[in-house]
Amino acid sequence: MEYRNMTRGELETLLAEEKEKYAALKSAGLTLDMSRGVPGRDQLDLSQEMLSILVTPEDCAGEDGRDYRSYGLPDGTPEAKRMFSYLTGAPAENIIVCGNSSLNVMFDTVARNMLLGVSKDSEPWSRQGNIKFLCPVPGYDRHFSICETFGIEMINIPMTTEGPDMDAVEAAVRDPLVKGIWCVPKYSNPDGITYSDETVKRFAALKPAAPDFRIFWDNAYIVHDLYDEGDKLLDIFAECEKYGSTDMVYMFVSTSKITFPGAGVAAIIASRSNVEYIKSVMAMQTICHDKLNQLRHAKFLSSRDKILEHMKKHAALLRPKFKTVCDTLERELGGTGVAEWNTPRGGYFISLNVCDGCAKKVYSLMEELGIKLTPAGATFPYRRDPRDRNLRIAPTYPPIEELKKAVDALCVCVKIACIEKILAEK
Amino acid sequence: MEYRNMTRGELETLLAEEKEKYAALKSAGLTLDMSRGVPGRDQLDLSQEMLSILVTPEDCAGEDGRDYRSYGLPDGTPEAKRMFSYLTGAPAENIIVCGNSSLNVMFDTVARNMLLGVSKDSEPWSRQGNIKFLCPVPGYDRHFSICETFGIEMINIPMTTEGPDMDAVEAAVRDPLVKGIWCVPKYSNPDGITYSDETVKRFAALKPAAPDFRIFWDNAYIVHDLYDEGDKLLDIFAECEKYGSTDMVYMFVSTSKITFPGAGVAAIIASRSNVEYIKSVMAMQTICHDKLNQLRHAKFLSSRDKILEHMKKHAALLRPKFKTVCDTLERELGGTGVAEWNTPRGGYFISLNVCDGCAKKVYSLMEELGIKLTPAGATFPYRRDPRDRNLRIAPTYPPIEELKKAVDALCVCVKIACIEKILAEK
Repeated sequence: MEYRNMTRGELETLLAEEKEKYAALKSAGLTLDMSRGVPGRDQLDLSQEMLSILVTPEDCAGEDGRDYRSYGLPDGTPEAKRMFSYLTGAPAENIIVCGNSSLNVMFDTVARNMLLGVSKDSEPWSRQGNIKFLCPVPGYDRHFSICETFGIEMINIPMTTEGPDMDAVEAAVRDPLVKGIWCVPKYSNPDGITYSDETVKRFAALKPAAPDFRIFWDNAYIVHDLYDEGDKLLDIFAECEKYGSTDMVYMFVSTSKITFPGAGVAAIIASRSNVEYIKSVMAMQTICHDKLNQLRHAKFLSSRDKILEHMKKHAALLRPKFKTVCDTLERELGGTGVAEWNTPRGGYFISLNVCDGCAKKVYSLMEELGIKLTPAGATFPYRRDPRDRNLRIAPTYPPIEELKKAVDALCVCVKIACIEKILAEK
Repeated sequence: MEYRNMTRGELETLLAEEKEKYAALKSAGLTLDMSRGVPGRDQLDLSQEMLSILVTPEDCAGEDGRDYRSYGLPDGTPEAKRMFSYLTGAPAENIIVCGNSSLNVMFDTVARNMLLGVSKDSEPWSRQGNIKFLCPVPGYDRHFSICETFGIEMINIPMTTEGPDMDAVEAAVRDPLVKGIWCVPKYSNPDGITYSDETVKRFAALKPAAPDFRIFWDNAYIVHDLYDEGDKLLDIFAECEKYGSTDMVYMFVSTSKITFPGAGVAAIIASRSNVEYIKSVMAMQTICHDKLNQLRHAKFLSSRDKILEHMKKHAALLRPKFKTVCDTLERELGGTGVAEWNTPRGGYFISLNVCDGCAKKVYSLMEELGIKLTPAGATFPYRRDPRDRNLRIAPTYPPIEELKKAVDALCVCVKIACIEKILAEK
């Protein structure tokens, strides 16, 4: 029965029960963490053999005999480019292989555009006044932090089940100060939504007023399917070809959640002219990225099949965790009308919407229990969730027994916060 | 006998002899490279065992049990900080350990100061008009490239045998638009000069007009001695303590020429307040740098003694190369009055000054022989050597037999260029 249809008496009884459970949980002294999208230890072990691939000096040579222990190849090794081709379908000449962090590549891309512009002849963003980025919400907090760091104004764009509201995007890009949009197009963070073909096509067809508008296509979960039949995301570059708009897109990928989050390899995929420009600046920034780690990865993930086979092992470890969360939410909160959530088919998160005005309360109730969630509001620019309802659940890191405890507790907290809200409004 | 004191006839005879040698060299079809400061393969092999240090999941844990395969510790692992303490003498809290490239750290430091300022409350450099950097010359081309990329005006400061001309530095920093200076204080690139105690003290005592003036102390060759008794460089931070000027200095170091140039670890050393600020921005830039590579290095270079012992092995391989170059220069060009060079006690370069107006000519003569030198002019901002006389010799990469051939050829080219110059002026 929906809580809103219950009588005050019924709600008060229910609240008392939940508060009793809460007190018990509190005395249990939990320390659990569901705050960040971090792979479990069992997932990290899947890539352990990668650390034994490079041993002898001969192991450290590239296919053309070049010694990868030494300087050179600032845009990456041919082997690593091929690996990212397997991953993305992009040709090697559109790929620049970087260091271990795609976030770093994104930060550098914004910084470069701020200081030097999107191309050789382009005005730096920082000299164009109060520039703006579009932020589909809820979204990834670290994208928003980059904008905040550089003083770029953020405009919320609502997410739909098909991706960002494209009517809103198309309207917003009529403003020439709008210079970019953050997208996680497959298994979006946190909603787990994969952009529909229609959405991708409309992105490719965008006609922004700013010639230096850029789509930041953070394809973080490109092969991170939970099921054999993964979501299908249209190749945005292929669509852009039809409109001559390939310069408008930067794609970012990494192996952080394929091999090791702390020691993976990241890449940026872009049009030939964007790649040439980025390489020209990058050549001033560094002599090379870590080519041994690139080679280690390329030897470990040596074909498209190897990558997909490896990702199936991750999926086997992650599916039960996602199932635990969704089953518990359904059992405890299904039909109550105080919570909605997605059941993603990939990615790293479950997005939970509770009653308006209750997310912060749930977060602090959980915090008091010793359970860390991503802070309420974090999925919105400036940490301001206008409806204070969204919570991001990251189920991947805790072992399943701990996860069960954490989600049970979460349901108790949601009930308490929402029943109190309903009672206050009655 | 000095060439300038020879008769026209004597010079013409000598020139004809050298041209004959040149023709013979040309027909030999050489392909040699003395252009960049790259370690030889034998040097890279010295660190090979580092690649077998991390194998099991347990190997990948930090001293507190943290799994370094995963996210976290954006400012570096405690083990790697300790390693850089052994290397620099700086306390761990003044150290931020980064990715594989100190050049990248320097680039990012300039970019951060351009966009966000040197501190939270500081005006970004990019909003202060036509800012300037001081460049001791000859110097490191990649420092100059960073300034050029960001449109920072460069002012030449002459090098003396004690380091940069401090009278000139002290005069220049009276201009509030002067925001920085590039220094390679030990075994400078390319002169191999170690700054005297007096020079370091005067740096520490600087009173620049700009409160956001910064010394970029690129300590690239901090332990890169060729002899057991290395040059001694005063600790600039200790000197700065006396003047309350520690915020004025960023020190950069890396293991590029200790372990692997393409897969080392770099760090920035700075005052507590600079470190806090840099960390606050870096936390927006990346979730972490490659901690496995940090751990590999920290386990391999596990004490000050281990580092010094390792560097002695490098020195043993490099000493004969430097000796070959200096002996040949002395034998062929000693007493001719057309060339001066240093005999460095460490670092990666020999700096050769030929007759004014002859460096480019020597470079192109060498190029025609198939021998790559660092381009003439590269050791000066904007690639403009006002006297066109400086050439940077990088003797570390070629095997010694090749190096001998290359330096023999170099002497022939220097003689041809300089004799022709003297004849033209007679």
